[in-house]
Amino acid sequence: MGGVCRQIMSRVITLTTDFGESDGNVGVMKGVICGINPQATVVDLSHEVEPQNIAQAAYIIWRAYRYFPTQTIHVVVVDPGVGSERRALVLSAHEAFFVAPDNGILTHIIRDAQKGNKSHRLVNLTRRRYWLPEISDVFHGRDIFAPVAAHLSLGVPFSDMGENIRDPIQLPLPESRREGETIVGQVVHIDHFGNLLSNIEKETLLGSRDTEVRILGQRIPRLSRTYAEGEAGELVAYIDSAGELAVAVVNGSAAQRLGAKPGDEIRVEMRKG
Amino acid sequence: MGGVCRQIMSRVITLTTDFGESDGNVGVMKGVICGINPQATVVDLSHEVEPQNIAQAAYIIWRAYRYFPTQTIHVVVVDPGVGSERRALVLSAHEAFFVAPDNGILTHIIRDAQKGNKSHRLVNLTRRRYWLPEISDVFHGRDIFAPVAAHLSLGVPFSDMGENIRDPIQLPLPESRREGETIVGQVVHIDHFGNLLSNIEKETLLGSRDTEVRILGQRIPRLSRTYAEGEAGELVAYIDSAGELAVAVVNGSAAQRLGAKPGDEIRVEMRKG
Amino acid sequence: MGGVCRQIMSRVITLTTDFGESDGNVGVMKGVICGINPQATVVDLSHEVEPQNIAQAAYIIWRAYRYFPTQTIHVVVVDPGVGSERRALVLSAHEAFFVAPDNGILTHIIRDAQKGNKSHRLVNLTRRRYWLPEISDVFHGRDIFAPVAAHLSLGVPFSDMGENIRDPIQLPLPESRREGETIVGQVVHIDHFGNLLSNIEKETLLGSRDTEVRILGQRIPRLSRTYAEGEAGELVAYIDSAGELAVAVVNGSAAQRLGAKPGDEIRVEMRKG
Repeated sequence: MGGVCRQIMSRVITLTTDFGESDGNVGVMKGVICGINPQATVVDLSHEVEPQNIAQAAYIIWRAYRYFPTQTIHVVVVDPGVGSERRALVLSAHEAFFVAPDNGILTHIIRDAQKGNKSHRLVNLTRRRYWLPEISDVFHGRDIFAPVAAHLSLGVPFSDMGENIRDPIQLPLPESRREGETIVGQVVHIDHFGNLLSNIEKETLLGSRDTEVRILGQRIPRLSRTYAEGEAGELVAYIDSAGELAVAVVNGSAAQRLGAKPGDEIRVEMRKG
Repeated sequence: MGGVCRQIMSRVITLTTDFGESDGNVGVMKGVICGINPQATVVDLSHEVEPQNIAQAAYIIWRAYRYFPTQTIHVVVVDPGVGSERRALVLSAHEAFFVAPDNGILTHIIRDAQKGNKSHRLVNLTRRRYWLPEISDVFHGRDIFAPVAAHLSLGVPFSDMGENIRDPIQLPLPESRREGETIVGQVVHIDHFGNLLSNIEKETLLGSRDTEVRILGQRIPRLSRTYAEGEAGELVAYIDSAGELAVAVVNGSAAQRLGAKPGDEIRVEMRKG
Repeated sequence: MGGVCRQIMSRVITLTTDFGESDGNVGVMKGVICGINPQATVVDLSHEVEPQNIAQAAYIIWRAYRYFPTQTIHVVVVDPGVGSERRALVLSAHEAFFVAPDNGILTHIIRDAQKGNKSHRLVNLTRRRYWLPEISDVFHGRDIFAPVAAHLSLGVPFSDMGENIRDPIQLPLPESRREGETIVGQVVHIDHFGNLLSNIEKETLLGSRDTEVRILGQRIPRLSRTYAEGEAGELVAYIDSAGELAVAVVNGSAAQRLGAKPGDEIRVEMRKG
């Protein structure tokens, strides 16, 4: 009994927002969570999502969720439609929960479940008993998403929190495609180091490192395994930690060097082995 | 018994400073706290207060404190007078504790207690047994405020930590005023999104949304309820999540658009209904 | 028994990296840690180390480690050589553990142990059972350092994690030197406020405040005890919270005023008492 209780109490809650860390709003969400479940463990994923950039948050939570314990509750709030008719959701998938506005921010997570043919369920959050008593029109992170996450961490069944839905808003996701011996993909994220992460999965490359990568007029003649294989200042292509092709400048910023931005095309020419 | 003990152990400590997060000094404060109370839950409110900006920190803790559980200990350190004769305080108010230098940083908190006619008590921190053994002249956040907060979180009575005082330093707070059918207030904070938060409380507006808001030569013809009511790029006025009038650019930065800064005047013309 | 267990479970893990906080990678390390030890307490020291700046991270962990409880596990990851032949280490010293790549990042910690003639032991991390099952070539923070730290926090003996080594890579550390009545040192860190921290220890100054400090053509005629002793905008020299000479502009940035950077010379002229 104690063991079960402990297990529930120590559920992890992650937070991903575009709130920044200067105003105290993230702290306030944690205050709300602690008030409901003092034993919750809260982990920040990012609060530096670009303001209103739903696609960026969708990408960040997608890269991260696989590394958290089962039953983790992921709260993802980039929410330009706050206070309007947009719905608020909890998604149960991948043995975890995702609490977010219904604006496409969970697109990758749902696609992963669909691809893997794994069960996933969505609930439209309508039961006010799991919210704060007063709801502002502009800060549902504090008033709805944080308290819902805290109640989930206490073991409240998600099905109790509203009615099932099947039509979440989904973002169009750019997928890489094959054209003969060429894979064509896009830059999908620029990280803190200025590395360019793409949507070209390593499986697509058929294990071959004998490839040429082209981006913004530059040619990179082969895949490196590590940054350390290149000289400082050299442009390198490699498989990043999530298993996708990426481009970096060794000890520098590829984004700055190339002036790259999300959406830029990356082409991989696979040579005959 | 176990329940009581658990409750004490899980007291939340919040931290608000101008230390930034690059040097490890906030982490060091947490190290000191963990050494005294390994069970404390520490929540960051903000470490990006502008250097030496006491008024900004005073505003941030004021907006946040209401959302934390009772018995939370709020540590607020913007402290240009560190090491001088300025006193160090613990304030007991609103069923919480506030640990801070005596430089006006708790002005809003004390004013809230006075307005509500609620009891509040102040103690001048002088009992060195609750400090680190060695006190530097330039980092009382580490040497005095963090250990005092940790001891409070263990249940040490605040009255044990020094003598009562009644004359804390208070900042002059700009208040909004009424001039006929016009409310005149000020920008008091610019948030991460560039939204302009004011000191005009929604109660002052008498529930009317039929008002015109004027700021820096711009006229906003009515109050919106949500950002989503405006078009992208539109200047909107609305009631923010703390219940004050605010001005935003939808999906943009009002601070940047208007070149606004704290202290700028906001006028609300209330029309005849 | 419960007490012992609790003590092990509540071990603190600190994180110092150059990962930034925008991409979710630090959060992912915490997810990995929580998956192995749900009771671990994780404290961020800094994730804003300049990309690839090993010396800066080495300095930050050195200033901080003394303030953490015994048995704390410090994870320090600035790792341009990730995936190459560079070793991964755990250092047992100062009643704490340090988990890091073997690139000199623990230089100060090892020097402190050597100076104090204190025992310290180094292990080359080779036992894959304490790592994640899959190891990427570019993110050992997630795949090796985080899980090793989590296992240490559960009480796994560090000697179990690999073989002893005695030849860690060490950085050359600039030391201050005496030339007659002059102490010559260097700026070693610029903090969030733009204060210039040096490697001139207060013991070197023989307790005298009757000294002149010279840096980049400026002369500061004496040592101040606090910032508040100077006027706003005044250049002051003082002993900082780690016991070294530092230079600041009161309510301003010395780094900006002087255009100072790490490596710049600071000279202290000791006058005849």
